Amino acid sequence: MPGMKAHVWVMLKSTVLDPQGQTIHHALSSLGYTKIHGVRQGKFFVLELNGMSQDDAKKQVEKIAREVLTNPVIEEFRYEIVS
Amino acid sequence: MPGMKAHVWVMLKSTVLDPQGQTIHHALSSLGYTKIHGVRQGKFFVLELNGMSQDDAKKQVEKIAREVLTNPVIEEFRYEIVS
Repeated sequence: MPGMKAHVWVMLKSTVLDPQGQTIHHALSSLGYTKIHGVRQGKFFVLELNGMSQDDAKKQVEKIAREVLTNPVIEEFRYEIVS
Repeated sequence: MPGMKAHVWVMLKSTVLDPQGQTIHHALSSLGYTKIHGVRQGKFFVLELNGMSQDDAKKQVEKIAREVLTNPVIEEFRYEIVS
């Protein structure tokens, strides 16, 4: 199946402090955006896949997300396959 | 409306070189993931909103994404409001 893509989101676990998000939150507050009550920042990856079945794509992307893109000590991930 | 969230994706424009994505792509190739034909890395933000109508939320998040989270010279964004 040509032209498949995968989207992977990698976020700090909710128990882990997010200084980047906090910095943005403070900046927004001081700019007058007082109804924003929290900001978390994460990473987003788009992978281009070729010549793979939907099933293979899922397995491979999950493995890549788990073993390459995510630090399991402090981060968690989710992914989707987009045709 | 309590408990609303906004998701914002900020990606390098497709015409802009993405060295982080390329590095990950090369790493994946050398790990044997040869069916991955490209990787782009972007940022993902989760904003917690409170006491806003859906319409106000849209306007405010679009403004924040445009003016604070995105560098319009090299990046583009999209967002969604999640109830």
